[in-house]
This record gives sequence, C-alpha cells and structure tokens, in this order.
Amino acid sequence: MAATLEFWFEFASTYSYPAAHAVEAAAKARGVEVKWRSFLLGPIFAAQGWNDSPFNIYPAKGVYMWRDLARLCGAQGLPLEKPSQFPRGSVLAARVVCRFAGEAWIPAFVRQVYSANFARDLDISSPFVIGEILSSVGQVPAEIMKAAQAQEAKDAFRAQADKAVALGIIGAPSYVVDGEVFWGGDRLEAALDWAEGKRTLATA
Amino acid sequence: MAATLEFWFEFASTYSYPAAHAVEAAAKARGVEVKWRSFLLGPIFAAQGWNDSPFNIYPAKGVYMWRDLARLCGAQGLPLEKPSQFPRGSVLAARVVCRFAGEAWIPAFVRQVYSANFARDLDISSPFVIGEILSSVGQVPAEIMKAAQAQEAKDAFRAQADKAVALGIIGAPSYVVDGEVFWGGDRLEAALDWAEGKRTLATA
Repeated sequence: MAATLEFWFEFASTYSYPAAHAVEAAAKARGVEVKWRSFLLGPIFAAQGWNDSPFNIYPAKGVYMWRDLARLCGAQGLPLEKPSQFPRGSVLAARVVCRFAGEAWIPAFVRQVYSANFARDLDISSPFVIGEILSSVGQVPAEIMKAAQAQEAKDAFRAQADKAVALGIIGAPSYVVDGEVFWGGDRLEAALDWAEGKRTLATA
Repeated sequence: MAATLEFWFEFASTYSYPAAHAVEAAAKARGVEVKWRSFLLGPIFAAQGWNDSPFNIYPAKGVYMWRDLARLCGAQGLPLEKPSQFPRGSVLAARVVCRFAGEAWIPAFVRQVYSANFARDLDISSPFVIGEILSSVGQVPAEIMKAAQAQEAKDAFRAQADKAVALGIIGAPSYVVDGEVFWGGDRLEAALDWAEGKRTLATA
C-alpha cells in the first residue's frame, strides 16, 4: 500500500497557490499518493478572534507575504498577479473538490482555480469562473455544481472542515500524514519524509 | 568579496534555536558569510497589539509549534526540553551579541544560549547563566557583561532593533540578504539562493 499525504488547502490562501502546483509532482517522485482535502480558514481564524485574513489585519505581515509569494512563484516559474480582491470566497470551489475528491480531473481543477485567483485575477466565487474551469477539465459545469451544492454534499464539506479543526490544522496549506500535521508550503519535504517513515522527535 | 547573509534572531524565539545551530554550516557550504544580528520581538509584537508570544496568545498555534519544533530538532539531532518559562527575557544575551558581533566566539555563544533556553531549561535572563556560557567560550563574564550594558552599547542595540523594524522584519528567525527579508528557518536555502544571485520574482 502506497503511503499517502493529505493536502489540506483553502482556495483563498495565497501560499496554497504555489503549494497546489507543486504537491503532486513532488509526492509522485517519492512514491506517495496525494489526497486532496479542501477546507475553509474562516472558522479557524474566527476561533482566534480574526474576522479577516491575518495578512489584512496585520499589514506588515501582508507586505512580507506578497513579496515572499512573488519569490516563491518566481522560483517555481508560476505567474502571479495580486488579486484585486483578497481574500475571495472559496466555498463553491471547495465544495466541488470535497464532493469529487477522488476523480482524476480534481488535481487539474484545483490548480486552475488557484491560477484563476492568483494569476488571472478572476473572481473564484463566481459560478461562471468555476464553470469555465470545469469545462476545461472535461466536466459539465451545471451537473457538477448541482451535485456539489446538494444538501448531502454541503454536510459532507462541513464535516470535512470540522475534521481540519480536529486535526489541529491552523493554516493553509497543511500536509497531513497519519494524523501528523505540517503547516506551510515549505514543509512538504518534511511531510514526505514522515510518509517514508523518517520520524524523529527530539527529546532532552 | 564574499556574499553575506544577516541572521536576525531573538533568543526567546523557539524556531530560532534549530536555525541558529544550522545557519553557519549551511552558509559556509555555499561560500556565504554570516553576520549575527540580535534583536527583540517584544516591540514588533507590541506594534501588532500582542503583549505576549503569539504562541501563548493563540493556544492552537502553540500546540502546533512545540510539536513542529520537536520534529525540526529531531531531524537536526538537537535535544529539546520545553522551557518551564516561555518566553524568557533575552535582552542581556542580545546586547552581548550586538556589542561583540564580529568576534570569533559569538557563533558558539549564540548556539549555547539557545541550548541553555531550549535544551537545558536554564533562565537565560540570569547573568549567572550568561556568565557560565561566556566562560565556556573563553571570555571573562564580568568584563563582557559590563561592556554590553554600557550606555553606548544599549543605544547601539536599540538602533539595531529599530533597524529590524525598518527592514520589515516581522518574526524570528529572519535571514536578510541585500535588504531582502526571508522569514522562518525553512527559508534559509532560499536566502542563500538569493545571496548567490538567483533572484526571480514572479509577474503575471
């Protein structure tokens, strides 16, 4: 049985953009399977008393983050255009991923939604934008969006978001291997090491 | 002229502990010189409305951080003992580094102060603890501490802390190369790439 890595992401999360474009190839190179797990940061931030992205609440953090993101994307060869609206509503796209997580078209869908938000400055909360992307990955937009917004699918997505909290996830992207949480795009290699059984914890 | 990397650190900062133990060897392997730059996070956090470590203010972040730190230290072969007091006062040790930054004994002093705080659970705000470490690196504690706490040295340290803010530093550890700030121990390789002239910024 191949080791698996859960990739927990929020479509509004800036650092998840380069991570989403990198995770599949990096995992494949190590023989690790990726599970795509969408969730929402809103409730997690709200639990810490934040009603907006911390990058907006703390401007110095925001200034640093956009510069850092330009470097990260530059190193990965990804285009970046600072969105005219940040953060953008991500629940529609996130529900699509939750409902169809195991489908072969999901990785490409995820990457295209991120590129729409952060390289094309498109409003990913719009069904028209999500519909265009669904078409481009060979799906029928109306059917997919209907299924993703059925009550059962909404409930399943809420349960998945609750699971993020239960796992101790505090930000996006996070990688989870056997319940072990690694937060931040930079921790991908550490998470893959964990998946390979390299698991060392320091003690005094 | 060798490229240089400024290592900006706060002795109370948990993630700076493994970073302080790693930075010199990693930089040397890339032919980059390290400049040791101590500062205080207190004023930077206060500017964001925090009167304590965010790892204490936001317990979920704290839980994650201590686990993550155990993994990072484990991977580096460093011992870790969660300090009985966190964060600890760091101004005395930080002033010593600022006053004697270019001396050959400083890197070993820095590493030992971090190990005292995070592997030996010693109170690094105590002159006795700092004195023991100064002795172990071949210095005369009373002389060094007197010089580090002279008014001129205090003023120079305050100016250095102000410079951290002016650079846009928002946390520790940070690596700075030609004014470019990289925050987080994980960004060491990216900072060294920058020092080597690999500097790509994404654009749309």
